[in-house]
Amino acid sequence: MSASFTLDKILDVVGPSEFEGDRDRVVLGPSSLTEASSDNISFLADAKHVFLAASTKAGCLVISQKLRSETMAYGGAKIFVGNAQEAWAKVLGLWERELLGPPWGIDEKAVVSRTAKLGKNVSIGALTVIEDKVQIADGTVIYPQCYIGRDVAIGADSVIYPQVVIRERCRIGNRVIIQPGAIIGGDGFGFVPANGRHVKVPQIGIVEIEDDVEIGANATIDRAMMGATRIGAGTKLDNLVHVGHNSVLGKHCLMAGQAGLAGSVTLGDGVVMGGQVAIKDHTKIASGTMIGGQAGVIGDIKTKDVLMGTPAMNLRQFMKLQALINKLPEIYDFVKKRSPADTPDGR
Amino acid sequence: MSASFTLDKILDVVGPSEFEGDRDRVVLGPSSLTEASSDNISFLADAKHVFLAASTKAGCLVISQKLRSETMAYGGAKIFVGNAQEAWAKVLGLWERELLGPPWGIDEKAVVSRTAKLGKNVSIGALTVIEDKVQIADGTVIYPQCYIGRDVAIGADSVIYPQVVIRERCRIGNRVIIQPGAIIGGDGFGFVPANGRHVKVPQIGIVEIEDDVEIGANATIDRAMMGATRIGAGTKLDNLVHVGHNSVLGKHCLMAGQAGLAGSVTLGDGVVMGGQVAIKDHTKIASGTMIGGQAGVIGDIKTKDVLMGTPAMNLRQFMKLQALINKLPEIYDFVKKRSPADTPDGR
Amino acid sequence: MSASFTLDKILDVVGPSEFEGDRDRVVLGPSSLTEASSDNISFLADAKHVFLAASTKAGCLVISQKLRSETMAYGGAKIFVGNAQEAWAKVLGLWERELLGPPWGIDEKAVVSRTAKLGKNVSIGALTVIEDKVQIADGTVIYPQCYIGRDVAIGADSVIYPQVVIRERCRIGNRVIIQPGAIIGGDGFGFVPANGRHVKVPQIGIVEIEDDVEIGANATIDRAMMGATRIGAGTKLDNLVHVGHNSVLGKHCLMAGQAGLAGSVTLGDGVVMGGQVAIKDHTKIASGTMIGGQAGVIGDIKTKDVLMGTPAMNLRQFMKLQALINKLPEIYDFVKKRSPADTPDGR
Repeated sequence: MSASFTLDKILDVVGPSEFEGDRDRVVLGPSSLTEASSDNISFLADAKHVFLAASTKAGCLVISQKLRSETMAYGGAKIFVGNAQEAWAKVLGLWERELLGPPWGIDEKAVVSRTAKLGKNVSIGALTVIEDKVQIADGTVIYPQCYIGRDVAIGADSVIYPQVVIRERCRIGNRVIIQPGAIIGGDGFGFVPANGRHVKVPQIGIVEIEDDVEIGANATIDRAMMGATRIGAGTKLDNLVHVGHNSVLGKHCLMAGQAGLAGSVTLGDGVVMGGQVAIKDHTKIASGTMIGGQAGVIGDIKTKDVLMGTPAMNLRQFMKLQALINKLPEIYDFVKKRSPADTPDGR
Repeated sequence: MSASFTLDKILDVVGPSEFEGDRDRVVLGPSSLTEASSDNISFLADAKHVFLAASTKAGCLVISQKLRSETMAYGGAKIFVGNAQEAWAKVLGLWERELLGPPWGIDEKAVVSRTAKLGKNVSIGALTVIEDKVQIADGTVIYPQCYIGRDVAIGADSVIYPQVVIRERCRIGNRVIIQPGAIIGGDGFGFVPANGRHVKVPQIGIVEIEDDVEIGANATIDRAMMGATRIGAGTKLDNLVHVGHNSVLGKHCLMAGQAGLAGSVTLGDGVVMGGQVAIKDHTKIASGTMIGGQAGVIGDIKTKDVLMGTPAMNLRQFMKLQALINKLPEIYDFVKKRSPADTPDGR
Repeated sequence: MSASFTLDKILDVVGPSEFEGDRDRVVLGPSSLTEASSDNISFLADAKHVFLAASTKAGCLVISQKLRSETMAYGGAKIFVGNAQEAWAKVLGLWERELLGPPWGIDEKAVVSRTAKLGKNVSIGALTVIEDKVQIADGTVIYPQCYIGRDVAIGADSVIYPQVVIRERCRIGNRVIIQPGAIIGGDGFGFVPANGRHVKVPQIGIVEIEDDVEIGANATIDRAMMGATRIGAGTKLDNLVHVGHNSVLGKHCLMAGQAGLAGSVTLGDGVVMGGQVAIKDHTKIASGTMIGGQAGVIGDIKTKDVLMGTPAMNLRQFMKLQALINKLPEIYDFVKKRSPADTPDGR
């Protein structure tokens, strides 16, 4: 770690809290409870880690208020907060900013069209290509080797990591983070049969990504045939996620690694899906639905539910059937034992 | 939309059709039935959308001949065609060409070997690397930041979007489209066990992509150990599809998003697979076979079939077993109720 | 093929062997048994290919010692070895080196920070970006258009193919191979709920890749929240594999195409998984465990096992239950036949 902060500075970013200790104490970096030394800060958000806090060497802890009484024995500085995970995220953010370094402005090896409009404090990395009429708002950072196609608009304070492609005319909101290698606005997979061939349907729509979205490494979000494929504000997509053309995702959804939406899927708000989930084309999923890893959803989910399996069903139903499948040996024994006696031909 | 066309021009690209309306009318862009305004053109290919056509504001419709009688009430211009979806693809193509803009020739920031041979009207984008002895035929467009390895050959009128990698010696046909981030010719996943380690088997074969193929964003097609991994003419692969080394795909196949073929898989012609399908190595799939999303095929499919599930089986069989699994509570109730009474030991 | 070698040279790379034939004979290239001509070398490692060896036109064969007696009839030169697959890998390696060509040094179009430290015989391709304080050891080859972030260290004799991203501070070992488009060190997928939103947890850890690892095309390995995501020595990951943050993989594991690990997964040594396998977060898998394609592991595997299915279970158990599921029609017939007679109300 290359930076150090006083507890005073840390208390400043954490927000409302109660503090026990010395504000001038210097912390060299964040660490886990088990690996921390006395120069480190760590955190306790979960009751099941109380036993680790008892023996940690960390010089300071961010502690969930509800665990206050269980940390009496801990001798270091204590920061009590309502949401320790959120506070911890803020602490990590202090070091992250140091580690990522300051914005660098427009690199002389960036290839920026004269018709592009760049806001204040925009950074563009070496060998990034910014095509004609691109608009980039204040404070956005674009790392090296990205491709920003013609007429793309990117909001303020977004971060685009290396080798991201955003094809022509797509819209990206404010405070959006796009991890390396993600592809925004590739053609949707649209073909019509004609004379035994697949004739391409041109995909002239776009992708719209709203504010505060994060897109994972090597994820792909296809442009719409017409209109827009849309990712709602605050939604987070993990690595290698695929979003088919004309899909519309609500706000604050989560899609874990390698999950995929076929075309024209609609997700409500707050839909959460595990890794490798697949949703059939033209399916609608109600807000708040949770879908377990590897599930395959092939029909509309009209009210909030917890789903599992392929084809996906209610989790309790899935567990029940799974338990009964495990009883099949017993069931079959029963049937086999009775079959010859019951049937006159003694098969 | 940045372009407008007269219906006369549109009729020209649509091909054989019957027309009712004013050929001089100007259309500003294509749109869906529900979102169209009077300056838009839309289409009706499916009987279930007739009710939308009744209230659309579109100034012109491309209409399937078979739905002719159901559009008497529609007051705009009408273009009747045999295959409305195909005609619609042609209409979209008019605007797509405008939106993508004209070819730009060889960008001065492209890095092109002096030993590369470029045909007429080839476009090479900024920061694309063209290695020694590459051959690119007439009219092919390569967007910025692609890597075209030594001795690669690319046919005519192909489109390679940004940040595509085509490693050494691979062959790409005519009218091939490769979406951003796809990797053609990475090493196959070949290792032999020796002394508790995995020893790499060098992959000195290539990838051959025939005419009219489309490859999705961030898809990966591995080079063969020896010989070639081959994608047959007219086959379309969606985003994040994986094709293992020495696999051979027939003509006019479709692989939806995140589907994958292990090594040495053989697909006949016209094989269609849904998203996240997986095919075991050395498996042969008969022409015309359709494989449902997330299915896992672990044995040869010798005659055309419709498959579902892992391990994959005939769709009807899958549906039947699925229905019976749903009856397991009933079955188990039956068994439980009779077990104590039937067995003398009353277990 | 652009190179030829004498059998003398080939015997030299193969290592300990017995030879029958003419050491001065020239071989133009490796080939399969069925496609070889008399100028080619081929190999026989598997008893089931003996019949192909009987009719091959190859001028020379690498033959497994244990099949010696079955190749009496073959008239070409013979190289008998203990491990024919391993020997064959060495033969292919001869041609691979020729095909890939010599190292090229530092391309004048590479963008290399003055604070980077490069060892001897390092090659850096055109338009690759090497950020500040990067260290690259002797003999490592980095192809064009890669991004090597600040403070990254790469060992000796590694090969990084085009368009690989290695984000800041990650460590790469010796003799590591990274296929095109792979992303090392993207942010882990970490969010905490706060006020109905997902608040990003900064990911300030790194990725550590030990010696002799291979990473497939477009694979993604996320950096840790704190500490390191670690890939053990000799482990090989196929294309489009996803490794979540803080996962730790043992030595000599194999993950086939599109397999994925959620966060904080621990794999022992020698774990082998098929394509599209998914492992739940915080799961521990015992050394030597084998996991069949598309399986989903949702709990710790404490002793070496062979697994299949979602949720994953022992293979034999899976096969047994699968067989019983196939008997459900018979079971249900039995139940249906008896239900009305058995129940007084004749339901």
